[in-house]
Amino acid sequence: MNMKSKRNKKPRVVIVGGGFGGVATAKQLKKTDVDVVLIDRRNYHLFQPLLYQVATAALNPSDIAAPIRKIFRKQKNLRSILGAVENVDLEARKVYVKGQPVSYDYLVLAAGATHSYFGNDQSAEHAPGLKTLDDATEIRRKFLLSFEAAEVETDEAAKEACLTFVVIGGGPTGCEMAGAMAEVARSIPDDFRHVDTKTARVILIQSGKRVLKSFPQESSDAAYDQLKELGVEIKLGPRVTEVRKDGVVCGEEFIAANNVFWAAGVKSSPLGETLGVELDRSGRVIVEPDLSVTGHPNVFVIGDQASAKDAKTGDPVPGVAQGAIQGGDYVGKIIRKELEDDTWVERGEFTYFDKGNLATIGRNKAVADIRGFKLSGFPAWFIWAVVHIMFLVNFRSKISVAFSWAWTYLLGSRGARLITGKSDYVIKQPPEDH
Amino acid sequence: MNMKSKRNKKPRVVIVGGGFGGVATAKQLKKTDVDVVLIDRRNYHLFQPLLYQVATAALNPSDIAAPIRKIFRKQKNLRSILGAVENVDLEARKVYVKGQPVSYDYLVLAAGATHSYFGNDQSAEHAPGLKTLDDATEIRRKFLLSFEAAEVETDEAAKEACLTFVVIGGGPTGCEMAGAMAEVARSIPDDFRHVDTKTARVILIQSGKRVLKSFPQESSDAAYDQLKELGVEIKLGPRVTEVRKDGVVCGEEFIAANNVFWAAGVKSSPLGETLGVELDRSGRVIVEPDLSVTGHPNVFVIGDQASAKDAKTGDPVPGVAQGAIQGGDYVGKIIRKELEDDTWVERGEFTYFDKGNLATIGRNKAVADIRGFKLSGFPAWFIWAVVHIMFLVNFRSKISVAFSWAWTYLLGSRGARLITGKSDYVIKQPPEDH
Repeated sequence: MNMKSKRNKKPRVVIVGGGFGGVATAKQLKKTDVDVVLIDRRNYHLFQPLLYQVATAALNPSDIAAPIRKIFRKQKNLRSILGAVENVDLEARKVYVKGQPVSYDYLVLAAGATHSYFGNDQSAEHAPGLKTLDDATEIRRKFLLSFEAAEVETDEAAKEACLTFVVIGGGPTGCEMAGAMAEVARSIPDDFRHVDTKTARVILIQSGKRVLKSFPQESSDAAYDQLKELGVEIKLGPRVTEVRKDGVVCGEEFIAANNVFWAAGVKSSPLGETLGVELDRSGRVIVEPDLSVTGHPNVFVIGDQASAKDAKTGDPVPGVAQGAIQGGDYVGKIIRKELEDDTWVERGEFTYFDKGNLATIGRNKAVADIRGFKLSGFPAWFIWAVVHIMFLVNFRSKISVAFSWAWTYLLGSRGARLITGKSDYVIKQPPEDH
Repeated sequence: MNMKSKRNKKPRVVIVGGGFGGVATAKQLKKTDVDVVLIDRRNYHLFQPLLYQVATAALNPSDIAAPIRKIFRKQKNLRSILGAVENVDLEARKVYVKGQPVSYDYLVLAAGATHSYFGNDQSAEHAPGLKTLDDATEIRRKFLLSFEAAEVETDEAAKEACLTFVVIGGGPTGCEMAGAMAEVARSIPDDFRHVDTKTARVILIQSGKRVLKSFPQESSDAAYDQLKELGVEIKLGPRVTEVRKDGVVCGEEFIAANNVFWAAGVKSSPLGETLGVELDRSGRVIVEPDLSVTGHPNVFVIGDQASAKDAKTGDPVPGVAQGAIQGGDYVGKIIRKELEDDTWVERGEFTYFDKGNLATIGRNKAVADIRGFKLSGFPAWFIWAVVHIMFLVNFRSKISVAFSWAWTYLLGSRGARLITGKSDYVIKQPPEDH
């Protein structure tokens, strides 16, 4: 099988998704004589680990997003298309965008994941999740509006519900959101006249036995303590069975809350279903040790869309940025080598290098698990800040901006406290003549 | 008449609108023993003169907007309400928000203006205007998407329409938008593979004889030349009679364009109509020399909502930030004095101090008319930059942010090139297998 045979043109690599995995793959092909097509439904690459900071008004959307075209403006062999891939025809070697085919010689699927409400889709309406910039500004809108609603609410129970924030899911995103929301509430008491924002309740619900279950027990305990210190109430054990407009049912209890946010589960992009190959329970494609699709060595799946195993340990590759980046690098190198040699190469198996796990709970509060070293509190937070600032510098290629961001963030400003979007704000109780 | 008689409480000043005028009024009352209620339908104060920079992706929304609560967090006599005032009952001395009354002793209306399509409301659909942050991100979305659409368009005429940007209205906003759009188009050729963004046409249509008609002839000429230099096509004379989905009818000519933006006319907030007093053609309230409403000395109208005359020259007070700020200061001082003395005072008449007019056309390109001194090109642009940076420093009270903004802006980055909002992007022609 020759990868150039079917088309009398340069071979073409189609990459679906401009996240960490897709971008890493494309960069590996920078100097290869190949036609790279990167397709994404958004025009930007998103630094998702900081998305919760947009949702909690610390950062601006453009601080953590870069136009895909800008990233690749100098990579002349890459063409980017704004569009959603609807299905893949493995036999014909084509993907379809709005019904139109795009042929490929190699295909890399890196379409990521979306929220999963575990079949409970009516939860979606009342408990927005956090995956895109639009999700983040929507959560920010809901979050900030609830203080406005509380300010003009005269019924005490209703006022309390306005000031009750429930975060469902105790993974990194849930912990980070809950911590940040508690911090915001405590930092703006002077902004309101009829509300003591310090009385706001932030409740984190995690159905398992501990928060941050992908971290070691020690880190979970540290995160728990730090969240408590910030005033977050943590409910471990009971599962949320219903999300209603006016609150959540959690075990036997009903919690009245106007603000419920979803950080509990993800499922893979539905694109995997169109492949006709084996998927796992979350809809991820079960891939070969070289991350290819069984029977289709020219098709790879990486990042959150893949169910992959680390060849060395046998452990599943985690759904984090590093998993996607390393997968993209690995796959990009294989494709480059095969195209340069014009033949299949011995690929080896994908191994995941765990650089460590970081989660931030608040200012000066974080947990880190770096190859067995467990840190918490300020040292963990300092590492977290340095890692992310370094990354942003690289990411945005603009030291000045990263510096200003760091400055602003370290000083604790919440400069992005803007309510945009729908103008039919959700204040139910009108202001009274009190 | 005693302003405290009706309510056995502190006198109350209700201010409608948190723009330049409303904020200036409120600040004058900082130390007065009074209950100030500021009502706005948005939670932020907007630095509107730079809104076009958000629309053209140079600045982030939060660079030019500040939460109203943050501005007044230390002014404890001020309470702010997020809501839209629907009508005013001058006799009962109440304004209504969602049907609920808010009483006042003094009322200051500073609700501003909105777009006017001169009765041609179907234009609104195809030619968005620029008044709010949401308008700005919507224009940014439309503007950036059109390059994406052109990239995948194969029909030459359709591709040209994607790359044709029409700005209707040659006032400061229109000139600034047109100039910035031309600059953006010329600065991103490397981002695209099938489109030469430098071939994009930006067409500015002004029905009168010159652009910037509120400026002296000399400045208009300079602006005209500078826009030409940036490659903007300027059509003077014919009026746009129809805005369609596929272009505009301008005089005898039809211009095919997927992107039409409205910068032609404004009308006053419809709130004025509920007063039952005399309005001018644009719906502005015709006020007394002290900016009060005839027969209601405790009700003032300022800024874009007022049709006021400079008592010294008899000229109309222009609808610019300075007009609103000076009106707010003037009115705030009257109210303060009258409340402190607990009686009506001799108010004098409002005079407008014209600090000058500035409009920026592009980097190093601007025109200025400062009390008779006319500047253009770099000197005018430099003044423009200094004035606006100074203002932002004051505005955001954060030197670091203003500095970073200045840095970013002076270096010419367009960091905010993000398409957010509706995900059903407007690309009509799907990507082909070319």
